[in-house]
Amino acid sequence: MKPELSWLRCMRCHTTQPLYGTTKFVCQCGGLYDVEHDFGIRPADVPRLKQVFRARALQGKDVKTRSRVWGFKEFIMPSLDDSEIISLGEGVYSLQPAGHSVVKWVGGHLNLWIIPEGQTQTGSFKDHGGTVAVSVAHAFGIQTIACASTGDTSAMAAAYAAAAGMDCVVVLPQGQVTNVQIAQLHAHGARIIMVPGSFDDCMKIVKELAAMGHVFPINSINPARIEGHMSTVFMTAQFLGWRLPDAFAVPLGNGSNTSSIGKGIRTLQDLGFVDKESVCKIIATQSEASNPLATSWQKCQVDGMVNAAEWLEQFHPQTKLGQTVATAARIGDPVSYEKVVREICASRGVVLTAAEQELIEATKVLGASGFSGCPQTGQALAGLRRAVKDGYIRPGATVFLVSTATSLKFPDVATSFGGSLVQTSSSTETSAVAKLIGV
Amino acid sequence: MKPELSWLRCMRCHTTQPLYGTTKFVCQCGGLYDVEHDFGIRPADVPRLKQVFRARALQGKDVKTRSRVWGFKEFIMPSLDDSEIISLGEGVYSLQPAGHSVVKWVGGHLNLWIIPEGQTQTGSFKDHGGTVAVSVAHAFGIQTIACASTGDTSAMAAAYAAAAGMDCVVVLPQGQVTNVQIAQLHAHGARIIMVPGSFDDCMKIVKELAAMGHVFPINSINPARIEGHMSTVFMTAQFLGWRLPDAFAVPLGNGSNTSSIGKGIRTLQDLGFVDKESVCKIIATQSEASNPLATSWQKCQVDGMVNAAEWLEQFHPQTKLGQTVATAARIGDPVSYEKVVREICASRGVVLTAAEQELIEATKVLGASGFSGCPQTGQALAGLRRAVKDGYIRPGATVFLVSTATSLKFPDVATSFGGSLVQTSSSTETSAVAKLIGV
Repeated sequence: MKPELSWLRCMRCHTTQPLYGTTKFVCQCGGLYDVEHDFGIRPADVPRLKQVFRARALQGKDVKTRSRVWGFKEFIMPSLDDSEIISLGEGVYSLQPAGHSVVKWVGGHLNLWIIPEGQTQTGSFKDHGGTVAVSVAHAFGIQTIACASTGDTSAMAAAYAAAAGMDCVVVLPQGQVTNVQIAQLHAHGARIIMVPGSFDDCMKIVKELAAMGHVFPINSINPARIEGHMSTVFMTAQFLGWRLPDAFAVPLGNGSNTSSIGKGIRTLQDLGFVDKESVCKIIATQSEASNPLATSWQKCQVDGMVNAAEWLEQFHPQTKLGQTVATAARIGDPVSYEKVVREICASRGVVLTAAEQELIEATKVLGASGFSGCPQTGQALAGLRRAVKDGYIRPGATVFLVSTATSLKFPDVATSFGGSLVQTSSSTETSAVAKLIGV
Repeated sequence: MKPELSWLRCMRCHTTQPLYGTTKFVCQCGGLYDVEHDFGIRPADVPRLKQVFRARALQGKDVKTRSRVWGFKEFIMPSLDDSEIISLGEGVYSLQPAGHSVVKWVGGHLNLWIIPEGQTQTGSFKDHGGTVAVSVAHAFGIQTIACASTGDTSAMAAAYAAAAGMDCVVVLPQGQVTNVQIAQLHAHGARIIMVPGSFDDCMKIVKELAAMGHVFPINSINPARIEGHMSTVFMTAQFLGWRLPDAFAVPLGNGSNTSSIGKGIRTLQDLGFVDKESVCKIIATQSEASNPLATSWQKCQVDGMVNAAEWLEQFHPQTKLGQTVATAARIGDPVSYEKVVREICASRGVVLTAAEQELIEATKVLGASGFSGCPQTGQALAGLRRAVKDGYIRPGATVFLVSTATSLKFPDVATSFGGSLVQTSSSTETSAVAKLIGV
């Protein structure tokens, strides 16, 4: 590693500290850190780098061609050596046009694409940031990583710790993580601590243990996570010929997606890879069960625009949470709320609430089009529909929907839809089945 | 479509019939069909086509760049028009080097790579063939597709039928398909018929219904499936600079993987894309629970070579099956057994048996390296280890292991490993958790 190329800067008091070697990812003033880099990219380098990124799309043995995150290493973590990278081939490769039935349901005749971030080793978008955070830990010789989780983060942490030969401690809200997600921890041998409380309780514990220097946190308070998730923006811009879409639609839980997509947009604009004046809105959606950012945004918005200071004043964590099938985003005290506020304001974006019935319907609509989307993807899609209806997105706009996980992680939700007719044959005779299906 | 460019030929009696418009994928003589094509590829076209395939690796809006299966359309189904294709972005994008611990466990200092075929829309390799079979059905105006399944095929059929706007009937062995896999059917709205029997009973029913013209079968008796699965070989050869590896290691259940990898090898050799004399062995592995091809191969092998006619004489379906965690390959009467025999002989390959404890150990070894591999992937890895031990693979050989599905589909297996220490905190206090983890 070249530690002089990457450092942390507090987003509140603007002091800096080294990236490599700390477990304290919350500043003494209480602010979250951003990672900053000396990119060393001059305007004259841009055309050459675009060619480099293009060439890396053809898979080879180099980690920068085996991973669509590390394919953008110059933007993501220029201070790491390739040999220090812990990769499981993460990144999105194949963007999907949304099916006609999905486009129709959303309305507005959008040019709608889906980013299937669940097609990773652990089945969720968390791998894209996890590979960066674990690689930084690995480069510095960390032996134990830890996280709080509603399921996806812990699976990622367990897999990448296994790949790196590290130990992993996961702190989970008892009874609120699916069996499929717990099975992943067993597969990769993480140590599981069940806590009789909510995700927010678990997050508080990990933050405090990290502040005391006891564990290296792999949640998105670790700003290296955000760097990896930016690859979603880089890959989309490359796909569009180094242009930004009109909007990204994302589910909003702890805030890492919104934070990283916003930072990714600004990074491309700042480095001159896309038009500096281009507008790319973030449409972030919470569920009714936990929507403190949406309700506070709503209170101070005028025609979709809010003042960041006013919004931060209106924001209060939500301690009493409702029930939702979108359990992975059921978070009342989003750890990255300040970054969410910054990026929504910078992107002229919006934060909306999807009613439970809307997000269930959206998830069904995705499944009926053949797409495997988790309930959080449905949450983002339901919010996008509302954004069209409320005029935040113009008809015909180009929008990329972030699908954060495969539906395989949420079997009970799909089963509860009861989308299938289930019949039992009386025997193993072909005639018995023929009779059932009426042929 | 251009139906004159693709047709069916019986592998036993060599008669032909049209590909488009039939549901009868078993010949009157009892033989399975192969799809044959008029490729229209002359030796002089080879360098240009290699450039075309390279360019398609960069994702664009064209289906031939959005899918790593259809990126090789010229090899897979030249008779289809692009507009007739039903694609969900299938195909493998990122080949993974096996972790050091996996290489060490296998022995022989192999140059071992893993093909993560579970990173698809439905979580298994079935999508790669399914997209082709459903596209052929779609081009011909079929309204209802059907399949028997141990879980993966039905999820694929349900998703692609949904994408194509078709109906889907799945015939399942009651109690032998995981809840996760049944949830996928609900998500995509397939009709489920539970049969009080084995997979082989279900397969017999679908074969008979198809022979009567009642349903369009999407199992691998439909030889269009095999065409899509060949993309595994094409993608690997492209990755190696248009060379074949020394071997592919695959789990063997119904035989579609072995059939398609063998045909893929022969196709590249016949068309002059790789050295015609190159040897690329298929290492196919069954579990102890159902190993009729392995036991019959073993009986007539001399130094790893068998005579096809003799092997076919020794082969008998297995009616009494043992228990295994690798349920997806628990098949006693493999529908593609004749194709397996042909391809194993042509590739100078082997068919081995993995003991239950070996395949469980192999699955654990994969998980401990951070890789999400299903028990069938463990089955193939355990067979590869045996192939090294028994001298069928030379030390240092380059081998590609086909990982057929994500472990997310088999949560009970991973949970049964109990790889994690699970502890419950007495409270939501940080000190209680600190005490548990000893800091």
